[in-house]
Amino acid sequence: MTDTTDMTECAPRPRGRVLGERVLGEQVIGEAYEAAEILSAARLCVDPELRAAVESLPGSLRRIALYHFGWEHADGTPAAGNAGKAIRPALVLAAVRALGGDPLSAVRAAAAVELTHNFTLLHDDVMDRDATRRHRPTAWTVFGDSDAILAGDALQALAQRMLAEDPHPGAPAAAARLAACVVELCAGQHADCVLESRGPDEVSLAECLAMAEAKTGALLGCACAIGAAYAGAGVDTVEALDGFGRQAGLAFQLIDDVIGIWGDPARTGKPARADLAVRKKSLPVVAALASGTPEGAELAGLYGREPGQGDLERMARAVEGAGGRDWAQLHAADRMSRALGELARAVPDPERAGGLLALAEFVTRRSH
Amino acid sequence: MTDTTDMTECAPRPRGRVLGERVLGEQVIGEAYEAAEILSAARLCVDPELRAAVESLPGSLRRIALYHFGWEHADGTPAAGNAGKAIRPALVLAAVRALGGDPLSAVRAAAAVELTHNFTLLHDDVMDRDATRRHRPTAWTVFGDSDAILAGDALQALAQRMLAEDPHPGAPAAAARLAACVVELCAGQHADCVLESRGPDEVSLAECLAMAEAKTGALLGCACAIGAAYAGAGVDTVEALDGFGRQAGLAFQLIDDVIGIWGDPARTGKPARADLAVRKKSLPVVAALASGTPEGAELAGLYGREPGQGDLERMARAVEGAGGRDWAQLHAADRMSRALGELARAVPDPERAGGLLALAEFVTRRSH
Repeated sequence: MTDTTDMTECAPRPRGRVLGERVLGEQVIGEAYEAAEILSAARLCVDPELRAAVESLPGSLRRIALYHFGWEHADGTPAAGNAGKAIRPALVLAAVRALGGDPLSAVRAAAAVELTHNFTLLHDDVMDRDATRRHRPTAWTVFGDSDAILAGDALQALAQRMLAEDPHPGAPAAAARLAACVVELCAGQHADCVLESRGPDEVSLAECLAMAEAKTGALLGCACAIGAAYAGAGVDTVEALDGFGRQAGLAFQLIDDVIGIWGDPARTGKPARADLAVRKKSLPVVAALASGTPEGAELAGLYGREPGQGDLERMARAVEGAGGRDWAQLHAADRMSRALGELARAVPDPERAGGLLALAEFVTRRSH
Repeated sequence: MTDTTDMTECAPRPRGRVLGERVLGEQVIGEAYEAAEILSAARLCVDPELRAAVESLPGSLRRIALYHFGWEHADGTPAAGNAGKAIRPALVLAAVRALGGDPLSAVRAAAAVELTHNFTLLHDDVMDRDATRRHRPTAWTVFGDSDAILAGDALQALAQRMLAEDPHPGAPAAAARLAACVVELCAGQHADCVLESRGPDEVSLAECLAMAEAKTGALLGCACAIGAAYAGAGVDTVEALDGFGRQAGLAFQLIDDVIGIWGDPARTGKPARADLAVRKKSLPVVAALASGTPEGAELAGLYGREPGQGDLERMARAVEGAGGRDWAQLHAADRMSRALGELARAVPDPERAGGLLALAEFVTRRSH
């Protein structure tokens, strides 16, 4: 498929200015549109490779994977497809382009990163007992735990197979990096399970930030680093782009956690105060719990019991009153600033860096 | 470690004769000793690499993996270690040697195969709710399902990382082959779950044999094929050694299933009639069910209800009366004969083939 896909669609339009650290303000339609264009171009480039990999699975596993990616309904009939935003493959391709490489050469690597992401989603949903993903019932609720575990295992293997069979000189380093990243993702998920099992006063902000970096930042960083490896970049540039993705990933997680409390249900597709209803120890919550304020103490009390009538609103006010919301937004801006520093180190020319910048701003500015 | 380990211990002693198809007779002490020597030499060569990989995991995951391999107790104190027989790594090294390669060059690949095997054990035990492995409580019973799933995921990643970082020219092909094998292992485990959920009259022998080939044969074949790839062998030889391992793996599974019914509890460490007690659809059982004999019909009746007093003995007699035991032993001999045919195709010199032959005979002749 690589010879027929017009990769010029992946190219960011010239931006003509540096966006700097203005991250969390109002949505700027033009920029969001540009990121949306990059994302849909990445989807267009990577989907055929991704789909071919999934179609190569034996029937039993294929069915589960096709359902998970939104390409089939549970009964095996074709579905319109809702395989997510393709942020990670878009980062791979944008990183290649930013460093002067040919994004077409990295389509398989981008698909491998997306397969890996989806392997972790399948397993995390089993562990977290999450019943909904991309507005549909999760695979384990439809096929059972074993099938979801096996489909995830197979996607991890497919990702590595794709890189092992890629003759590109960047492939072995990418495979090693992706495998190391999987270990970090597993450690992050483990830390998440441990933190969720603890009492509200037994969780530190440093632990939660480290968990979020491993669980979310690591794969965004890895996607960028793999793109750099495919562009033939040196070690310093690869590491800087890893840092860019990691920091942007943490900013993304912080904003995601803010949305989990204050997001508009009409836009998020989740109930209001969704994270509070399950007493999730998200970053704004843990910041509030650690604040030493009366509101933090009130929140700890509310988190220590089954939520009753009006408790969710009380919790949201307590997190805000304790400074958890402000902290999360400021900390997201700080992480985004660090991300931009890493990006400037890897790609000094702002015009070349535009695609990566647009993607990072897209994921941190979204409101749902 | 590779420069200090004496790999000459891996060498089979000259055999001076071809063993032919005499597979399932009485144990020949001299040969078993030779196989035991090969296995313990493989353990000695591969363990440091394996242990280093596991030690490289982040603390939370390391603890689970060290427990699983028998290197630590559940409380984290050191244990004597009982990491299994190392059949798969021994096959990798024996295949390299049989084809005139340097086994030392394939120690990492052998460790990667063993990591992959252990990843599937961790996950299979979760799915099958198996509570005992190598005479110890399984990881999920000690650490919970999530931890066992995550440790398994991390071991799969470690295996691929090890091959991706191996500069040996055979490594990329080995990585691709191992990843493809994981998909087959997952499909085999899926088929196993499906077959176990069906009624005793809804399972065909062909389905069960295909499942056993995917679940057991595939990785033994892959181990041999990876050894061949590391020895620089051509496609035909690689495929013949894959076939050798696959057929020997099926012979192994058939004998394992016979032991699951008629094995001596004092030697197996499992209760008598262990597979019958859980009404497992093992190969002798399915052969009996499909036999069209009165004993087969009796067995179907016994498998359709909770086992009562004396039922396990009745089941064992029914399987035997229906010809299930004889069929399994003859079929194992047939598979072993096919294995030897593949081996002769890959390694025409019987002396060179001796190590692989001794391993295949060891796994099919064992009585526990």
